[in-house]
Amino acid sequence: MAHISLGLDETHFPGITGLLRYRQETAAPLNSLADVLLHAPHPTLSPGERELIAAYVSGLNECTFCSSSHSAFAAAQLDGGMPLVRQVHIGPETAQVSAKMRALLGIAAAVQRGGREVTAELVGAARAAGATDLEIHDTVLIAAAFCMFNRYVDGLGTRLPLDPVAYEEAAQRVKQSGYVSTA
Amino acid sequence: MAHISLGLDETHFPGITGLLRYRQETAAPLNSLADVLLHAPHPTLSPGERELIAAYVSGLNECTFCSSSHSAFAAAQLDGGMPLVRQVHIGPETAQVSAKMRALLGIAAAVQRGGREVTAELVGAARAAGATDLEIHDTVLIAAAFCMFNRYVDGLGTRLPLDPVAYEEAAQRVKQSGYVSTA
Repeated sequence: MAHISLGLDETHFPGITGLLRYRQETAAPLNSLADVLLHAPHPTLSPGERELIAAYVSGLNECTFCSSSHSAFAAAQLDGGMPLVRQVHIGPETAQVSAKMRALLGIAAAVQRGGREVTAELVGAARAAGATDLEIHDTVLIAAAFCMFNRYVDGLGTRLPLDPVAYEEAAQRVKQSGYVSTA
Repeated sequence: MAHISLGLDETHFPGITGLLRYRQETAAPLNSLADVLLHAPHPTLSPGERELIAAYVSGLNECTFCSSSHSAFAAAQLDGGMPLVRQVHIGPETAQVSAKMRALLGIAAAVQRGGREVTAELVGAARAAGATDLEIHDTVLIAAAFCMFNRYVDGLGTRLPLDPVAYEEAAQRVKQSGYVSTA
């Protein structure tokens, strides 16, 4: 049971989904932020690539609900599927991702430790691998945002879904419709 | 200079202000979230009390821009002013705040360390001191959100204002108008 009473059946609204229904005033900007960062059209980073950053940071924060969710969302939208996502969780250094994505994941890991951990060297390495300013910006903000979402979900003691198939079902909804309409 | 080119004079747009102008698609939900959490009407927590939580977490994350900003914003809206804010930065245990606020700040500090650090004991202590479910929810989300904002500001290497009076000026704008119109 969550740390607070959400006024709904938590088995049907696991993780953040119950929180978004509990407080709709905060749900609106949270959904909107997730949609812009992860689903909305982007000049160079696909939704799958952006979900991969979210999944990786959620794994580093040991947030089971978010890590499982965004791993499924990334897998549903990346050619490499779940095997590739698992490689990234094990370590971007050895994962079969582009040099640019490896450098962006390195920046994301630094953000997860703390904002000041992002050094000019990490940013320079990403730029040398072809990353644009917008890609660096969005990587930092996605990683930072998941340091929020992960703490929100675990800080209020939310439940996991009873059946992990819920992550796959949510992945199809997010792939199709993004975050705003799934509030 | 920030890690990326923001396309503006960073001396006039320090900290998050330059980032909000750089990427307006993300600025809209970020400002809206800050406004709901810190400025919009709340049944029991004043804007000053909510800014105090934001300032405290920003201090724990050692984010100079956010800590200075939200300390000024809290001081401008609390009877105790900056002396009280300084007491909280030194330690909520000895600060002249209510038992309820002390317990909420304890939850915020746990969130800063990580979502799983929020224990049933911390939540129970807050409840015993009179905290409502909504107060506990909003404390967790404010603390989590500042784990995002702090990482965003420092992760992109933004500048501090040249003159610290900028924090006081911003405090008057935020006290008057909140966050949405200051985007």
